[in-house]
Amino acid sequence: MTDVKHMKWWGWGVEGVGFHHEDKPGFAPFVVNAVGIDVWKEPVPPIDFAEVNVPESVASDEFFAALTTIVGPEYATTDGLERVVHTYGKSIRDLIRLRDNVLPRVPDVVVYPADESAVQRIMALAVAEDAVIIPFGGGSNIVGSLEPVPTETRTIISLDMGRMSRVLDIDEYSNLATIQAGVLGPDMEEQLNARGWTLGHFPDSFTHSTLGGWIATRSSGMQSDKYGDIADMTKGLRVVQPGKLLVVRPIPASATGPSVREAILGSEGRLGIITEATVQVHRLPAKREVLGYLFKNWDSALAAMHDIATSDAAPSITRVSDARETAFSFSTSKASHGISGQVQKALFAFLQKRGWNLDEVCLSFIGYEGTASNVSHQKSVVGDVLKKHGAITLGKGPGALYDQKKFDTPYLRDFLLDRGAAADVSETAAPWAKLKPLYDNVFAAANKAYAEIGMKGWIMCHLSHSMHSGACLYFTFAFTHDGVDPIAQYDVVKSAIQQAFIDNGGTLSHHHSVGVEHARWIEDDISTAGADLVQGMFTTVDPGKNLNPGKILTRE
Amino acid sequence: MTDVKHMKWWGWGVEGVGFHHEDKPGFAPFVVNAVGIDVWKEPVPPIDFAEVNVPESVASDEFFAALTTIVGPEYATTDGLERVVHTYGKSIRDLIRLRDNVLPRVPDVVVYPADESAVQRIMALAVAEDAVIIPFGGGSNIVGSLEPVPTETRTIISLDMGRMSRVLDIDEYSNLATIQAGVLGPDMEEQLNARGWTLGHFPDSFTHSTLGGWIATRSSGMQSDKYGDIADMTKGLRVVQPGKLLVVRPIPASATGPSVREAILGSEGRLGIITEATVQVHRLPAKREVLGYLFKNWDSALAAMHDIATSDAAPSITRVSDARETAFSFSTSKASHGISGQVQKALFAFLQKRGWNLDEVCLSFIGYEGTASNVSHQKSVVGDVLKKHGAITLGKGPGALYDQKKFDTPYLRDFLLDRGAAADVSETAAPWAKLKPLYDNVFAAANKAYAEIGMKGWIMCHLSHSMHSGACLYFTFAFTHDGVDPIAQYDVVKSAIQQAFIDNGGTLSHHHSVGVEHARWIEDDISTAGADLVQGMFTTVDPGKNLNPGKILTRE
Repeated sequence: MTDVKHMKWWGWGVEGVGFHHEDKPGFAPFVVNAVGIDVWKEPVPPIDFAEVNVPESVASDEFFAALTTIVGPEYATTDGLERVVHTYGKSIRDLIRLRDNVLPRVPDVVVYPADESAVQRIMALAVAEDAVIIPFGGGSNIVGSLEPVPTETRTIISLDMGRMSRVLDIDEYSNLATIQAGVLGPDMEEQLNARGWTLGHFPDSFTHSTLGGWIATRSSGMQSDKYGDIADMTKGLRVVQPGKLLVVRPIPASATGPSVREAILGSEGRLGIITEATVQVHRLPAKREVLGYLFKNWDSALAAMHDIATSDAAPSITRVSDARETAFSFSTSKASHGISGQVQKALFAFLQKRGWNLDEVCLSFIGYEGTASNVSHQKSVVGDVLKKHGAITLGKGPGALYDQKKFDTPYLRDFLLDRGAAADVSETAAPWAKLKPLYDNVFAAANKAYAEIGMKGWIMCHLSHSMHSGACLYFTFAFTHDGVDPIAQYDVVKSAIQQAFIDNGGTLSHHHSVGVEHARWIEDDISTAGADLVQGMFTTVDPGKNLNPGKILTRE
Repeated sequence: MTDVKHMKWWGWGVEGVGFHHEDKPGFAPFVVNAVGIDVWKEPVPPIDFAEVNVPESVASDEFFAALTTIVGPEYATTDGLERVVHTYGKSIRDLIRLRDNVLPRVPDVVVYPADESAVQRIMALAVAEDAVIIPFGGGSNIVGSLEPVPTETRTIISLDMGRMSRVLDIDEYSNLATIQAGVLGPDMEEQLNARGWTLGHFPDSFTHSTLGGWIATRSSGMQSDKYGDIADMTKGLRVVQPGKLLVVRPIPASATGPSVREAILGSEGRLGIITEATVQVHRLPAKREVLGYLFKNWDSALAAMHDIATSDAAPSITRVSDARETAFSFSTSKASHGISGQVQKALFAFLQKRGWNLDEVCLSFIGYEGTASNVSHQKSVVGDVLKKHGAITLGKGPGALYDQKKFDTPYLRDFLLDRGAAADVSETAAPWAKLKPLYDNVFAAANKAYAEIGMKGWIMCHLSHSMHSGACLYFTFAFTHDGVDPIAQYDVVKSAIQQAFIDNGGTLSHHHSVGVEHARWIEDDISTAGADLVQGMFTTVDPGKNLNPGKILTRE
């Protein structure tokens, strides 16, 4: 095994770390109410890896030897665990398939190139031998961007970028850092922070996703209101393509025809392997505050977020949970922390006295960064908007807690799966005027789907990113599955939610990308002519269909 | 003739309006010094239109009749003046060719479709008959995006979008306006302003360019620091393609694979005819101020712009002229306005007393917009940076004057051409650390080119747009030409400047696009693999090469 770190083969995150409910007294009653599960009952853990039926590698000895020559003997492997780790991302579909031993096709070889030159040689070999290359970053994808086409007969290489993890250069006057694509979030920030810089990109997957993965899927982080999406940050690119090296020079803005940079962004490996990017970076802010707020209800919360986005204010985070997600948040409070226990009781009593319905209260976090005077100015501008919408300030305590726990939520999925419930997320973006009806119709669609499959289900939402003309709504859904065919049940629910996005003026994904999971809706979203144009890009770069085939477009 | 307005067939802007120097006492001495021209000598006006050799239209009667059926008899024409008006943009190359009667190929028919359905029918006819379509907006392009391929033997249609000029809808809650692509800047702003909105896009060409033209060339306006470039503003698009209608829905941000939206942006008609766009709009600001400042020299000016862009400040305009452009600005002051005459003398005396070298002083304009409190906050944050760099505030007077005169500069080119000098502009963008060496090397390259052609020449520059990782440098150059082959002389100078952009880490154009003028450098800029990808888009959408062939890529 190499020193490249991976998540658990069967679930999210680091081995030995998981979600625990014992210190969260509100959680058990919440879950019974939401999906009908008793969290105290004996969990059913995932199968042991020894039980997994790993298909044999179809890589020929010659092919494997050629790859070994390129990367070195310790960095090419046909080991079963390695290959399974590189088969899927971490969607609920992936987690269920792993538990159910459903592995129709896994990569035949996993390789860890040390540098761009090795990637070029692997590419040349793969094209010459008509093999398939699937690039692999942190493996956190939840839309099927990593999985082999089940019927693929050619040799499949999973190209793990994990060794290419260095910040190569910081141009401290241009605010630009050149970074290898395989670096994981924390490793990258550590290297940048050491010199006083930050990228400012913190997606939920941050601890287990890579720069190259963010670019290949059009990722967006929690502080996008200030720092922009990865598409805004990415200025230069180096991409290994069949027989070519595509280079986008780091230019702040350019008028060079159709954007090649914006074609590589979101290309999920289909237009080549991103080896390196030059991204805009920021000095670590002198001050950073995340404040908690409460809104009387979802309508006033949405209206406030709209007004902040339309104003001159520039907060770094604007996030608000609907009443159901707010209830979820309160249920995961530890007895000893945050707005829980006595404090929570006192707060609720105060709100009731003001005439607030506790079932409608919405929890919000708003972040401010920069110089002390900028933070204070932004807080004051935002404060005026919040006051107009009747929000109550909870101060820094809950904000700090949110900041600490923000990357932990994905662990919950494995906890629920151990207990017979399936949970996943779907996000969209839409213009401000469409958000409220979209939200209502997504809820109706999900509840109809739960009725259809005859299972108790739950759906909750937060607004996660605000833009001038609209916002991202991020839904989390969960249901008790029947234990027979949970994926079929998931398909009903997931499809209903995605269809409601499209039918209500939303996009199929704001920042999780297309993969195979969302490919069904691509022509509804970007039009058939748009899909034709994207297909033309794929065919131009990859006439032999060697680059991660089957993703984004369903037509092949 | 239709009621669609056009610029002079031979020059910039409105008939009867031009540059006058008589009320600007500093101008004559400035021009003698810069390019050696006596502005008092008798001008040589452009030729009379009667002298122009307009090639016969090759459109067949049947074809013309079919077009007439689509748009109505008054909106299809083979009139000579109309066809010449639609042949070129307004680059110095275009202006010289018109004066020199160089019209190897002009469009055969000019059509004015009333709506998208008419555009679709024209497209179907053009593809069926293997004709060429060149879309035409305001005709202000300076990189040859509008001109027919000189050797084109097929029938060429100039598709003038001028009748499609309505703001169709404003979604006042989403800050989105849906607008027909053929609308000219002032007409669009008038329609938006009437309802309290603005797009905030004010390129130098504003009075004579269109929304569709801005999108097709990746335009950037003077207030881009606040409002972004047209690429940032454009959310939804409708594009008529051969046999298809491409629709990008107005979504604030999306992760739907390679960006189709960003492929249409900058496509110069090669990926279809943009009929409509949904753009993000802003409420007219409560307050708007443009302040003038002086810097001791270019180094301190650039350093200040860098520090503003790197700070938390969000001004709407950051613009600074180098010492030579500053001298030019002072030379165009009217005796009765601005910082001229006695005031100018007093100011200069004051600066000299402070030890400033008057030959090095740089004039800057910085704009602030929004609520009164935002304007005051931004001014204060920017003010701290300016103070650090020793800038002197000139206040609102010069700023207001700049604001009034900002669209007038292009008229100067025709004035100079009447007097034997050729002038044009070239802009680039580069990372902050590269701006100073790029600037120095562009000057050296231009001066070397002037020596090579043996002519007295001038070049000056301003920083026109600031971004987090770099800025746009906008060069204006002029030289006395030999009266024999001014275009050959222009080629030497223009090529030297463009090559210096590329060699010093700049892009071939920040916001004027590629056309034919910059196509030579496209592979240096976006790499050969990048150009291959763009070529693939063109071939996919337009296998018959009916859509504005020859632009952006030189390989065909």
